[in-house]
Amino acid sequence: MTATKAYAAQSATTPLVPFNFERRTPGPHDVQIEILYCGVCHSDIHQVRNEWGGSVFPMVPGHEIVGRITAVGNHVTKFKVGDLAGIGCFVDSCRVCDNCKEGLEQYCEEGMTGTYNSKERDTQAPTYGGYSTQIVVDENYTLKVSDKLSLPGVAPLLCAGITTYSPLRYVGVKKGDKVAVLGLGGLGHMAVKFAAAFGAEVTMLSGSPSKEADAKKLGAHHFELTSNAETMKSLKGKFDVILNTVSAPHEYTTYIELLKTNGTMIIVGIPPEPAKVPAFHLIHQRKKIMGSMIGGIAETQEMLDFCAEHAIVSDIELIDINYINEAYDRVLKSDVKYRFVIDIASLKK
Amino acid sequence: MTATKAYAAQSATTPLVPFNFERRTPGPHDVQIEILYCGVCHSDIHQVRNEWGGSVFPMVPGHEIVGRITAVGNHVTKFKVGDLAGIGCFVDSCRVCDNCKEGLEQYCEEGMTGTYNSKERDTQAPTYGGYSTQIVVDENYTLKVSDKLSLPGVAPLLCAGITTYSPLRYVGVKKGDKVAVLGLGGLGHMAVKFAAAFGAEVTMLSGSPSKEADAKKLGAHHFELTSNAETMKSLKGKFDVILNTVSAPHEYTTYIELLKTNGTMIIVGIPPEPAKVPAFHLIHQRKKIMGSMIGGIAETQEMLDFCAEHAIVSDIELIDINYINEAYDRVLKSDVKYRFVIDIASLKK
Repeated sequence: MTATKAYAAQSATTPLVPFNFERRTPGPHDVQIEILYCGVCHSDIHQVRNEWGGSVFPMVPGHEIVGRITAVGNHVTKFKVGDLAGIGCFVDSCRVCDNCKEGLEQYCEEGMTGTYNSKERDTQAPTYGGYSTQIVVDENYTLKVSDKLSLPGVAPLLCAGITTYSPLRYVGVKKGDKVAVLGLGGLGHMAVKFAAAFGAEVTMLSGSPSKEADAKKLGAHHFELTSNAETMKSLKGKFDVILNTVSAPHEYTTYIELLKTNGTMIIVGIPPEPAKVPAFHLIHQRKKIMGSMIGGIAETQEMLDFCAEHAIVSDIELIDINYINEAYDRVLKSDVKYRFVIDIASLKK
Repeated sequence: MTATKAYAAQSATTPLVPFNFERRTPGPHDVQIEILYCGVCHSDIHQVRNEWGGSVFPMVPGHEIVGRITAVGNHVTKFKVGDLAGIGCFVDSCRVCDNCKEGLEQYCEEGMTGTYNSKERDTQAPTYGGYSTQIVVDENYTLKVSDKLSLPGVAPLLCAGITTYSPLRYVGVKKGDKVAVLGLGGLGHMAVKFAAAFGAEVTMLSGSPSKEADAKKLGAHHFELTSNAETMKSLKGKFDVILNTVSAPHEYTTYIELLKTNGTMIIVGIPPEPAKVPAFHLIHQRKKIMGSMIGGIAETQEMLDFCAEHAIVSDIELIDINYINEAYDRVLKSDVKYRFVIDIASLKK
């Protein structure tokens, strides 16, 4: 067992505070990772505040983890001490269901084992996430990380990155496709980068004129204001794909109208109330609404390799761990460009 | 011009009554068809009663037409006098938009020209449908009909048939796929026949125990009662595809839960109010909701040829034209197995 420093929520209504616990000794298939950086995901806040129900405390959040391997189990074959490594949203799954066998561990029929706020499949011990100095994970749920990229910017790829990469790949976005990204936040800014890297003609749809310059810098070819009725009218039937990252309440119909025949609106945000879907709008031009959640291990590795090849990282603000509660407040105000990443060195002091 | 006997609605609130009008003389690309049978579609009632708005009176409904060619224009190459022919939901489209060029005339960017309750693209003359003794249509919007099948049962293939065939083909239903059909009516009974013919394991989902025997006779391998909570629970995650034919108000979530990972719910019914879609249910297993509307000319021909090869027709009740108003009342009560078809001989008396 290894003493580990962390920040944890002790309840749904109290701020995160320092917390000490022990990581297990690496088993034969485990790697031990010294965590260097961990991204701050909006879902950390949802779970810390028990907004999805079922939260277990104390909770050490964090599922956008990059670090360096400090120990490997006897049977580990993919990693060696000193390698860079990444951990995303899950650290285990049943491994035998159809989805696991097809590399869709995120859709494991028994439910994936979350990197935090979950339970180890064997011991039922709580899982603790990346707001901590180290983590021990089965090598099969550990990703290889290139040393070509800036590591703090790699961390958010493990959630925000794969969440947008996976559905854009699944629907087959390719050169010349017209892709709109709705909402410029942690997910949206990665969606713009990936869609542009896949060769699509990318339009950022946003309600804030102030975001135009950033959107273009991120790779968007066009910026359109959703608040402008004339603009929205002119965009009807224009897009093959809309990647909808918005989790605030909003009408789906407005955006479905912007899709071409056979177009798909990908949903990755979860509004608090179900949106209404007018059958007519889907039927009239064979349109689709599709959900998507992160990605499997193989696809996450593919995404990391793609990022290394195309020099793609997340735009981040690096923070010390003692800024975390303020960071949460700012995430809730969308006041971050575009992801906070914790410098875990600040936790070791 | 050719004198034509028909039944028409003179207003949204009066019954259909006899009506006489003239069909145009066939142009160089037209065929003239002596109508033998015409199906009665629920959408005939919606339009006659102006429930979708914009209805034009007098209205001669009917877009499930089979008949025999009695004259052809000088430049007609695909048909000759004496051939059987079919006309579906549209008789023209712009022919130059991307959708028309791809054989998706039903999604024509200018809007298809409906077989009735629409206007000819050139003359702006009202189009009159199949509750009539003859029709004149461009050969490119006319389907070939095999003499192998019982003609009254072919008529509904032109709408109910293609409406279910097209999306099942589009999502690639194949041998061994688990397909559920929701609702056993005009559309549902065709969906069962096609899904079974494609080799799928077909489940009829219905609220009426009385429909079990029929569902199985139509080709369903299983029949499950949607009103049984235990049954519904046991069906979670079971289906690759659900073809949802219901146009009464209903919750989509109940059925989305029955889909497997990557599953698709196809919507062909239009409930009066938009259904709610919980993003979480789509995201959690990468599920899709897709709309679909009839099919293009090439695919409609493919469907008719498939039906001839596999001996598939609609189950129908043949009626005389003077029964049409009573038939409408029975359609509204779902009291028909499974499509009324008008014997147009009764209109010639």
